[in-house]
Amino acid sequence: MQLTLNSPMDMHLHLRDHEMLKTVAPLSAHPFAAAIIMPNLVPPVTTLQMVEEYKARILEATADETFEPLMTLFFKADYDYAFLERAREHISAIKLYPAGITTNSQDGVSSIDSEQLAPVLTAMSDLGIPLLVHGETDGFVMDREKEFVPVYETLATRFPELKIVMEHITTKESVEALKRYDNLYATITLHHLLITLDDVAGGLLNPHLFCKPIAKRPEDKAALLDVALSAHPKVMFGSDSAPHPQHAKESCGCAAGVFTAPIALQALAQLFEAHDKLDNLQPFISDNAQRIYGITPPEKEVILIKEPFTVPEKYGSVIPMFAGETLPWRIADVS
Amino acid sequence: MQLTLNSPMDMHLHLRDHEMLKTVAPLSAHPFAAAIIMPNLVPPVTTLQMVEEYKARILEATADETFEPLMTLFFKADYDYAFLERAREHISAIKLYPAGITTNSQDGVSSIDSEQLAPVLTAMSDLGIPLLVHGETDGFVMDREKEFVPVYETLATRFPELKIVMEHITTKESVEALKRYDNLYATITLHHLLITLDDVAGGLLNPHLFCKPIAKRPEDKAALLDVALSAHPKVMFGSDSAPHPQHAKESCGCAAGVFTAPIALQALAQLFEAHDKLDNLQPFISDNAQRIYGITPPEKEVILIKEPFTVPEKYGSVIPMFAGETLPWRIADVS
Repeated sequence: MQLTLNSPMDMHLHLRDHEMLKTVAPLSAHPFAAAIIMPNLVPPVTTLQMVEEYKARILEATADETFEPLMTLFFKADYDYAFLERAREHISAIKLYPAGITTNSQDGVSSIDSEQLAPVLTAMSDLGIPLLVHGETDGFVMDREKEFVPVYETLATRFPELKIVMEHITTKESVEALKRYDNLYATITLHHLLITLDDVAGGLLNPHLFCKPIAKRPEDKAALLDVALSAHPKVMFGSDSAPHPQHAKESCGCAAGVFTAPIALQALAQLFEAHDKLDNLQPFISDNAQRIYGITPPEKEVILIKEPFTVPEKYGSVIPMFAGETLPWRIADVS
Repeated sequence: MQLTLNSPMDMHLHLRDHEMLKTVAPLSAHPFAAAIIMPNLVPPVTTLQMVEEYKARILEATADETFEPLMTLFFKADYDYAFLERAREHISAIKLYPAGITTNSQDGVSSIDSEQLAPVLTAMSDLGIPLLVHGETDGFVMDREKEFVPVYETLATRFPELKIVMEHITTKESVEALKRYDNLYATITLHHLLITLDDVAGGLLNPHLFCKPIAKRPEDKAALLDVALSAHPKVMFGSDSAPHPQHAKESCGCAAGVFTAPIALQALAQLFEAHDKLDNLQPFISDNAQRIYGITPPEKEVILIKEPFTVPEKYGSVIPMFAGETLPWRIADVS
């Protein structure tokens, strides 16, 4: 049994920098044709020079692969129109983080006042630059995303031509909002399609499945599966694959993030096949994103076959999801 | 500033066995006059010989302290009346675990069918032996206790003379059930009065605050604080202090349990003082339990004074709650 994916894209990817970049970038660049690269480095990517230098480091790390890093800027309220007009040639989107909400987001915006942000958002809307949002408040961990939905609604209403991507959604409330507003889109990770809080803290505590936003309730996972498996036209795959060295995951005070990049296509094939929805994987993994972003990724054909694939225990210092487990699909060829 | 507690009791305590028992038993026996000792050893404590031998090991480990271990049996549906009549002289209660729900509960009851359990529960009711219950289903981690409330209600209605203690309650639904049924009582831990899921998984993942039942929502903590700080007459302190070696807490797949025994009185003094309820600590920590269980613990006077107490980083191999932090109250004298 065989499955061909054309130009799969990861619309939410953390590649980090330095040694970690060298470890993880090739693992995404091999099976994926392109990926939206998150800008939350330390310091965050806020100038076009930083964008170009980071892109060069990514391309160096992925040298032998056909792979297009789709660069982003870290949202700042003081970007002006002229800057954004230039930026449009260098980036695919701008990512907004509420301050302090996730890894390396200390420099994010401290309050999402749509009037205060209006100049930038109006310019982005005019210039056709999508706004990507980490949509969580600083409330109780299980409520943070749900509490953020009114912010999405305000933004969607106030800037009706702005494409707003609700990143890594995890709740049924976000799925409902997505359907209510024409200009709201969403990425969904692999892990949020597979796990709930039960998998993180229901038995023994599992730091490798600890992520932000935290995995939610069974009914939330069901709502995500519904739109992902049906390849809802406003939904895209975004792994949010977030590598941390083993020691940072397993020590006391574990960092948030699940590393899925090298196993995402195989696990998605398994998931979509289990629900008899294999035909919908292509739009979920590429076509929807091409249409939403208006981009054409490099041509890349990924052939998966139904043969056992034992996930490595580690990639460098990073432990992937399903480490040591055997998945039923493997990547047979990339061309 | 000084506070005197008379014969404080810990109505839910794990002392484990062997080396761990030797490490932790003196830490409870010093400040507490008595404690209800959980029977979930490996294998569980199910015979009177095991009760007496375990009690002897505890007394050996606590040799120099005035401390009464109030022993319990691990609930079995096949205990008969004659056995329970003899048992009454050796134990203070019987602890029921749904199978597989927490540490060393594999041998618990696999379904709580009140008719199947009726012979034992009727005998316990007739003999005045309290039933202590770990009240969780095998459902979604945040719902397990709430889903168990109907079981408590069935038991309370079917066996109206049986004293039923809802152990380590963590939800507002349990607090409401407690108030609705005359024969329902509850223990509350220190940590569930202080933390929510936010403290476990809201920032970095904190394995040392991972416990079963898992810490719940802010409104749940508020409901617990309400009955604890007011020393509701059906509520008792039970630490559920549960030592695990450091490696079992900090490795991948962390064990559930918070170790609070040596810092519980100091932290409770801080909490009750912060809410201007210091007068209610005595009934919460001893008087309510004496009345509910109909017991008189050994006389022990514990004097706390408001001077800084820096919690040790470790007791043996066990990391306590507040390790390395400084609390405002310390134990000045025990006599």
